[in-house]
Amino acid sequence: MKDSNCIFCRIANGEIPSTTLYEDEDFRVILDLGPATRGHALLLPKEHYKDLFDLEDEVAAKALVRAKRIAGRLQAALGADGMNLVQNNGEAAGQTVFHFHMHLIPRYQNDHAGILWEPGSTTPEDMEEVRRLVEGQ
Amino acid sequence: MKDSNCIFCRIANGEIPSTTLYEDEDFRVILDLGPATRGHALLLPKEHYKDLFDLEDEVAAKALVRAKRIAGRLQAALGADGMNLVQNNGEAAGQTVFHFHMHLIPRYQNDHAGILWEPGSTTPEDMEEVRRLVEGQ
Repeated sequence: MKDSNCIFCRIANGEIPSTTLYEDEDFRVILDLGPATRGHALLLPKEHYKDLFDLEDEVAAKALVRAKRIAGRLQAALGADGMNLVQNNGEAAGQTVFHFHMHLIPRYQNDHAGILWEPGSTTPEDMEEVRRLVEGQ
Repeated sequence: MKDSNCIFCRIANGEIPSTTLYEDEDFRVILDLGPATRGHALLLPKEHYKDLFDLEDEVAAKALVRAKRIAGRLQAALGADGMNLVQNNGEAAGQTVFHFHMHLIPRYQNDHAGILWEPGSTTPEDMEEVRRLVEGQ
């Protein structure tokens, strides 16, 4: 299914131009217009899925294999030192376009891209409570 | 292949105890001891792969399907508002344990977990240069 009101559907299917790094029948990988670092790319399925939870398993299975391949090429092409994959679901998680996408973010020594969080703390009791809640689902 | 010197191999294979949310023949999902938010979990393959680029395609294909399933359970169980998947490769990208893992980070309104980057800028000329470099790989 495509959604003609979805900008990522239109980009993924070539109706809106983009700088395309890779394309096959299922996905398009484009450069992000507001990159965290040089080479920041987005993997977009051509079909419309609003987020990870909406994605068909068959597409999910292909997505990480494609991400691996393209991220490897990007890292080599740009001489990057590392790579973050980031995939956001829901406004609270920073998702701004509601068409599933995976960020491929090349990292460079001391790039200060600031993607990482501060590690917090927990307790054995709360961890057990979380485990129990998940088990109950 | 397992590496007896790798702490995530030992956790994934049950030699070191963990709070386990899910386990099958390929993966174990555990709670992170230094969580960014409540319910921060790690998906670990039982075999040793140092990072995404080292992962077999067959395992990569299964990894995102499992992550989807467990992330959905986590989000529902904890009443979270969103979910980040983050997967780091290389020290420059914040990888600290060199056994492939995917972070499942439940997000809550105003949790200030600070995972997002500041969007930067680029130019059409540099985007074209990046495209050309990737094409040359």
